[in-house]
Amino acid sequence: MKLVRYGAPGAEKPGLIDAGGTLRDLSAHIGDVAGEALAPERLAELAKLDAGTLPAVEGNPRYGACVSGTGKFICIGLNYADHAEESGMAVPSEPVIFMKATSAICGPNDDVIIPRDSKKTDWEVELGVVIGKTAKYVSEEEALDYVAGYCVCHDVSERAFQIEHQGQWTKGKSADTFGPTGPWLVTKDEVADPQNLDMWLKVNGETMQDGSTRTMVYGVAHLVSYLSRFMSLRPGDIISTGTPPGVGMGMKPPRYLKAGDVVELGIEGLGSQKQTCVNDA
Amino acid sequence: MKLVRYGAPGAEKPGLIDAGGTLRDLSAHIGDVAGEALAPERLAELAKLDAGTLPAVEGNPRYGACVSGTGKFICIGLNYADHAEESGMAVPSEPVIFMKATSAICGPNDDVIIPRDSKKTDWEVELGVVIGKTAKYVSEEEALDYVAGYCVCHDVSERAFQIEHQGQWTKGKSADTFGPTGPWLVTKDEVADPQNLDMWLKVNGETMQDGSTRTMVYGVAHLVSYLSRFMSLRPGDIISTGTPPGVGMGMKPPRYLKAGDVVELGIEGLGSQKQTCVNDA
Repeated sequence: MKLVRYGAPGAEKPGLIDAGGTLRDLSAHIGDVAGEALAPERLAELAKLDAGTLPAVEGNPRYGACVSGTGKFICIGLNYADHAEESGMAVPSEPVIFMKATSAICGPNDDVIIPRDSKKTDWEVELGVVIGKTAKYVSEEEALDYVAGYCVCHDVSERAFQIEHQGQWTKGKSADTFGPTGPWLVTKDEVADPQNLDMWLKVNGETMQDGSTRTMVYGVAHLVSYLSRFMSLRPGDIISTGTPPGVGMGMKPPRYLKAGDVVELGIEGLGSQKQTCVNDA
Repeated sequence: MKLVRYGAPGAEKPGLIDAGGTLRDLSAHIGDVAGEALAPERLAELAKLDAGTLPAVEGNPRYGACVSGTGKFICIGLNYADHAEESGMAVPSEPVIFMKATSAICGPNDDVIIPRDSKKTDWEVELGVVIGKTAKYVSEEEALDYVAGYCVCHDVSERAFQIEHQGQWTKGKSADTFGPTGPWLVTKDEVADPQNLDMWLKVNGETMQDGSTRTMVYGVAHLVSYLSRFMSLRPGDIISTGTPPGVGMGMKPPRYLKAGDVVELGIEGLGSQKQTCVNDA
């Protein structure tokens, strides 16, 4: 299934995209794409619905973040060897974890707001992993049992805030709108191999990132297992698994986003996002 | 006011402690100590209630975390000069920010669960600042207008997870029960000067930390203003403002928590916490 949340910010309704691409309303079946609704057994019940009987949604509503009630937005740093190289950093001997503020989460096509005083707002296409049930000390073998599905994440990053204002990366990852997710939460039954998905990102039509989850250093199952040693993962938590090469910081000279720039990004089977950059008011 | 949440985990009710120390139920007036209920005007309405008319709560119920619905649990690193020194780190030229997982939050007297494979679980008494309304780009002068109140936070920390497993501190700060808060959310009208509060922590009755918020490097108003440049602060967010000297890591030899240890900690006017350490199942 391709689960979505559609409607005005803060008033999104749950829906799904049927096999023909039609958006259909799920309000009669789940309250939101969040929390307990993401449990495997609940998703299995939803999958039994005859999508053709669900109300089709008229028009072209906005999509919200594909998951609501996210308690933790966990990011993995330097998880593609080539990206570590372009960032001038070593490939880590264990996954590097940092947090993005959950208040950064927004819809996949909402404007990206460049913060005041920002000079180095950068892009990062990432595979997002959405947790379906609480995971604590889970083995790598069983890790995917705790995953509800996958989505596109844009880990928007302000490099000066991240790197030039004293340690810990959270500072450069957490501005409002720095976390577009979606358009869809694609349940894991539709993703044959999360480690073999092409991914791309364009700025103003020019391809900047053109990679694949094949070159991740630490794969999804390892990350879920590893993280669950240090904190419990809860339904609706998102793990953004790192970005392939091609970010603006790695270019010579570096290139950053400015108001008016249009960023498009996507992952094979998970849909695409399109954002316009604007200055903060 | 001293606002509390009392009852079984996940089923806490809102309450307050009246001038005589009696716990009284607030369920008829607010749904929870969370979100919009923390806005200054809502707190002003609550303050007008005649506490004596509120139902007294029988017995000695458990206290939950003093705030619910926390979207961000933001910590400030090395914010006391003497603690930076005992940690062998320099006083930062700007506040160091990192995130604790919100899933770490628990009640002030709940057991602290030492994670599997932990050898270096450590203590840190900290002043917690609870946000009352959304703050974005606020000046230092107006920053406290966005604060609902203050609480005791225990920033439990696993030093090996934090420091010896690749960068970014989140990994050592986020285990379940690593974030006791409360017992009370003390509204700011009752805290004459957040930069002049004595604070202490004992392990098995022995004083380990004995400090004051006077020696913070970056004070509350500065922190709220500074953080609001990098992310929006939302109602219910907690800022844990750093710890004074006396953590286990700084001792010679270092000393860490083990099952059976009892930690007590408190801050002048904000109440005290008492936790028993247990091993994870």
